[in-house]
Amino acid sequence: MTSPSAPQQAQCPVYRSLEAVGERWSLLIVRDAFDGLRRFGEFQRSLGLAKNILAARLKALVEAGVFDLCPASDGSAYKEYVLTAQGRALFPVVVALRQWGEQHLYQAGEAHSLLLDADARQPLAPLQVRSQQGRLVAPEDCVRTPAV
Amino acid sequence: MTSPSAPQQAQCPVYRSLEAVGERWSLLIVRDAFDGLRRFGEFQRSLGLAKNILAARLKALVEAGVFDLCPASDGSAYKEYVLTAQGRALFPVVVALRQWGEQHLYQAGEAHSLLLDADARQPLAPLQVRSQQGRLVAPEDCVRTPAV
Repeated sequence: MTSPSAPQQAQCPVYRSLEAVGERWSLLIVRDAFDGLRRFGEFQRSLGLAKNILAARLKALVEAGVFDLCPASDGSAYKEYVLTAQGRALFPVVVALRQWGEQHLYQAGEAHSLLLDADARQPLAPLQVRSQQGRLVAPEDCVRTPAV
Repeated sequence: MTSPSAPQQAQCPVYRSLEAVGERWSLLIVRDAFDGLRRFGEFQRSLGLAKNILAARLKALVEAGVFDLCPASDGSAYKEYVLTAQGRALFPVVVALRQWGEQHLYQAGEAHSLLLDADARQPLAPLQVRSQQGRLVAPEDCVRTPAV
């Protein structure tokens, strides 16, 4: 996301994160990887995306350190896209997007998928922004400092 | 984010959230609103964005229920973009993106802005995905069910 006139944006971690994973489809690819998909064809079938666009997104995600491109786990000639530790750390981002959508973008009774804790077979706890002391923190309780 | 061949995507809350706020710049506008910006010119100066693109993004965010367009709080002729409750509920999404960026996209010593709890003047606690029982939950501890 290159801005013509705001170089200070690069000092904002939100901006830099969106530069890395904010392209259309990127976070859906990561979502699918959390669901266990690893191969180009699997992502392609899941997303119904043109191959050239999917290839470009995957390449960018490898370059951004989100995926490693690895030999297939079954010894076949396929390559697999495996989330790095950095990619796995996007889990709260994807869960936050899911929970916001569940809460605000579906009519009562409208069907949507669920992400369940496999042990308890229950939805996850809502993500909450808290202080280091454990207090719930609202946007107006925060201050953004310039780059340090 | 319209997919040509995957209508079942609409049953995924992550997809639907990205349809609402996943356009380039949308979440940066929301970030700026969390920092207190309300007017078109304020967003424009912050983002350095072409006016027609900013206008289109703000219009889409109003239509998506993220902002209300309100008379100016100072009685002037300006309009102000005020986050709705639904828009404010994006706070965990923006904080999750920020924390991921802080953790993974800066070199040691590289400058970036900080979001501090105004009371304690400390960074916020890291967002963690937990079960309803409070257990830390990793992606592989979860199962995604079809739409219900």
